[in-house]
Amino acid sequence: MRVGFILKVKKQLIGEYKRRHRNVWPDMQQALRETGWHNYSLFLREDGMLIGYLETPDFDAARAGMALKEVNARWQAEMGEFFEQLDGQRPDEGMIQLEEVFHLD
Amino acid sequence: MRVGFILKVKKQLIGEYKRRHRNVWPDMQQALRETGWHNYSLFLREDGMLIGYLETPDFDAARAGMALKEVNARWQAEMGEFFEQLDGQRPDEGMIQLEEVFHLD
Repeated sequence: MRVGFILKVKKQLIGEYKRRHRNVWPDMQQALRETGWHNYSLFLREDGMLIGYLETPDFDAARAGMALKEVNARWQAEMGEFFEQLDGQRPDEGMIQLEEVFHLD
Repeated sequence: MRVGFILKVKKQLIGEYKRRHRNVWPDMQQALRETGWHNYSLFLREDGMLIGYLETPDFDAARAGMALKEVNARWQAEMGEFFEQLDGQRPDEGMIQLEEVFHLD
């Protein structure tokens, strides 16, 4: 399945967010691969709107798998401050999943 | 290259937009394939924000190729009314391209 989601990065932290994502920890990348996050990209609009796209056998399983990873807890704790309107959720809990309305292979 | 872009569908036309995209004309789909639009998905948020994701050898060439297709002119003419804030541009001219800040294969 293909997944699209949205989050909002605080405008004043956009530069730092980009810097961190040029060097995502290798064990975080490995955990994503192991839990089924494939062809995963993040795109950022100038105002901080962040778009995620990934392909996975099962997004609920992919999220649940990451939720069990110790490295993810550390990563999300560092990322929490970067996002707006999470209402106490972690970033990986605050993703707004989008409806796929068209696909062409 | 991977491309992410954003457009905004008028809220009152979301249902019709989704209906049209369940039946994209076969010759429009063929034109997209021929001009290098691959693994192309559209995702819609409840408020009408539309996210596009595609993979292409060259996005400028893919857009230029489509701009020359007669079927695309007909499709974009029909789609124009669905979008907000195009300022007279066609939807395929009004796409806001996003910066890729992370990728994991």
